[in-house]
Amino acid sequence: MHSEVVEKAREAKSAARVLASCSTAEKNRALLLIADALQDKSKQILAANETDLDHLKQKPGYTSAFHDRLLLTPERIDGMAGGLREIAALEDPVGEIEGMSLRPSGLQIGTVRVPIGVVGIIYEARPNVTVDAAGLTLKSGNAVILRGSSEAIHSNRALVAIIQEQLAEAGLPKGAVALIEDTDRAAARAMMRLNEYLDLLIPRGGPSLISAVIENSTVPVIETGAGNCHIYVDAGADLENAQAIILNAKVQRPGVCNAVETLLVHREAAPGLIPSLVPALNAQGVEVRGEPASQKFHRKIMPATREDYETEFLDLILAVKIVENIEEAIEHINRYGTGHSEAILTADYLRAREFLAKVDAAAVYVNASTRFTDGNEFGLGAEMGISTQKLHARGPMGLKELTTLKYIIYGEGQIRP
Amino acid sequence: MHSEVVEKAREAKSAARVLASCSTAEKNRALLLIADALQDKSKQILAANETDLDHLKQKPGYTSAFHDRLLLTPERIDGMAGGLREIAALEDPVGEIEGMSLRPSGLQIGTVRVPIGVVGIIYEARPNVTVDAAGLTLKSGNAVILRGSSEAIHSNRALVAIIQEQLAEAGLPKGAVALIEDTDRAAARAMMRLNEYLDLLIPRGGPSLISAVIENSTVPVIETGAGNCHIYVDAGADLENAQAIILNAKVQRPGVCNAVETLLVHREAAPGLIPSLVPALNAQGVEVRGEPASQKFHRKIMPATREDYETEFLDLILAVKIVENIEEAIEHINRYGTGHSEAILTADYLRAREFLAKVDAAAVYVNASTRFTDGNEFGLGAEMGISTQKLHARGPMGLKELTTLKYIIYGEGQIRP
Repeated sequence: MHSEVVEKAREAKSAARVLASCSTAEKNRALLLIADALQDKSKQILAANETDLDHLKQKPGYTSAFHDRLLLTPERIDGMAGGLREIAALEDPVGEIEGMSLRPSGLQIGTVRVPIGVVGIIYEARPNVTVDAAGLTLKSGNAVILRGSSEAIHSNRALVAIIQEQLAEAGLPKGAVALIEDTDRAAARAMMRLNEYLDLLIPRGGPSLISAVIENSTVPVIETGAGNCHIYVDAGADLENAQAIILNAKVQRPGVCNAVETLLVHREAAPGLIPSLVPALNAQGVEVRGEPASQKFHRKIMPATREDYETEFLDLILAVKIVENIEEAIEHINRYGTGHSEAILTADYLRAREFLAKVDAAAVYVNASTRFTDGNEFGLGAEMGISTQKLHARGPMGLKELTTLKYIIYGEGQIRP
Repeated sequence: MHSEVVEKAREAKSAARVLASCSTAEKNRALLLIADALQDKSKQILAANETDLDHLKQKPGYTSAFHDRLLLTPERIDGMAGGLREIAALEDPVGEIEGMSLRPSGLQIGTVRVPIGVVGIIYEARPNVTVDAAGLTLKSGNAVILRGSSEAIHSNRALVAIIQEQLAEAGLPKGAVALIEDTDRAAARAMMRLNEYLDLLIPRGGPSLISAVIENSTVPVIETGAGNCHIYVDAGADLENAQAIILNAKVQRPGVCNAVETLLVHREAAPGLIPSLVPALNAQGVEVRGEPASQKFHRKIMPATREDYETEFLDLILAVKIVENIEEAIEHINRYGTGHSEAILTADYLRAREFLAKVDAAAVYVNASTRFTDGNEFGLGAEMGISTQKLHARGPMGLKELTTLKYIIYGEGQIRP
């Protein structure tokens, strides 16, 4: 086994037992101390980030988008600190009692919400994930094992050093937030097999990271992130509003998981929508790709392949398809979608209901942009990612999704007849 | 890929979409038809079961306990039918709306409870699991792929044929309850990799089955069953009551997961408890094993090894250990326990609270037998097994645990600013 991983996981497990019985006030105090310290020591963090950025520039395949994800600025550090203060302000789900009732046996039985224990996170470049994940797991009473990418290792080390200092200052175990410094693949693989210490593993990143974790992990996994999202424009929909929503869902932030990737248009809505939509999309730099049926509505629609309908572009590209009816739209979505966010734009009551009932996804919208799928917009506060699987958590994962239940039973000597 | 498994899984996925929009009345009608048909055609089932029993007798390693698990009788068939009628009487969790609220964006956002989709179950000899699992998944709107053991294949085929006939009679797709007829290991392995069609895999059986599923499955798994359960007798506990509870938890049904396997006794309680407890246990055929500190309280305590504390005996054996204090008891439980059911017997308020808070298990008891951990006793009705993991479901899994949530969002044209 990988000694760094095992040692830190063992320490995290013992820290988790301490955190599980911490009061909300103790956890909040630590969060606020960390927030202050990040701002006070921002020079230290920026210097470490500079080292990462310098190394990045020497790497082949360097892109400005990657540079931007890795980059920290004083404003971004303020943002991370602000995020921790928001987490401190959220309600603590731990300790909530539910469904306590008196059973015919005379036993009082109910559940109490408790932390999951030790959560592992394997993620890519963005150093803000380090702080967000530490904040959310700390508030929910969990220990966390962070395994970021090699490109961000200096930034992550600086951030975790500050977090650990402040945990100690708050009287909490430093091992509650651990960073795996070995960024080699072997360390991530070791985490995936650590059922003895890890209760949950969350991969945050691209499809290849997520599928590697699913393929290799024996620790329970929550899949996050993949969003091949659709908007279906129904016959009779308000087409002016449809155009505004489609533009918003595609261009407001094209690189995120809740951006729209494929537009499905009822054949009756196509003549009124596509001729004005395509130039509007083109004007924002979006390339539109469609099958022959849609291409005839505008010459600037490039030919689409089956692969285009399967792809989460995360880019200024939109696939378009004309459908005969809502059934075809729903079938397309349930076949090609990743179960993230799906929307119908319609003026028809029954078809709105049908879409909500039959589309199988974490978030199903009527007459709104898919871009709203987000912990804050949904009222959960900060989030740990967006689950696209059905077990345990579906959609944005907030504090509650980082907890589990335990049955507690009060008796007076009952034996089972 | 395994063609029988893939074909039945594909059919199950399409059946799941139909079941997801069935009304409660339609599902209940099918359950009641199946219950009646099982009783009407009991001769057919018993004949098939006879074939399985005949084959069993020719196998090496044949035991009467195994024979009993495989055996069907007219009474047991009535029991299965009765179980289905109880499931029909349970509340249907599907469609329940939770947390619908108006967000600052003007969007109305909430969740609706929906079936998981296609559930796979890999289990051992008992044919009643076939009927229970089909009933619970059907009521919760899921399709199910059943993969029982080779020893029960004729019984399972007969049961599933009757179930499918009645599904068709009720106008529901037959593919909603599928039996994998290939009982070779390759079929089970194929199920574990079928992420495209299977949403959840539940192994029900011994530790080697469960660990094989965890090791090999890329489909999300819920672990069930392993129960290395403890009772801790605190200093000052009512010892007469303690003896009654320990006897109940050990002998009332020793082969089940919520039976007690290790007794932890505070050193102050030992002299008053052990000398009378050991003969009482021996009188019921229980062998008691302990470390030297406990052996000195009774000559009939056999020496215990570390392995005894790690073992779920599922048999008339009880390991005993003397502990210095509650902390040592909790530490022992959290180290050796499987997170199933754990009990403290105490008269002390604060120690009861401490045990409830610090023991990490699905069900934690004060002053009652661990034998109560069960869907019916906990008020869930029939159960699909008892989850010992922390994700999605913990403790007895009823209908609600076979569902997931979907966010539904009602808008009037909102775009994200």
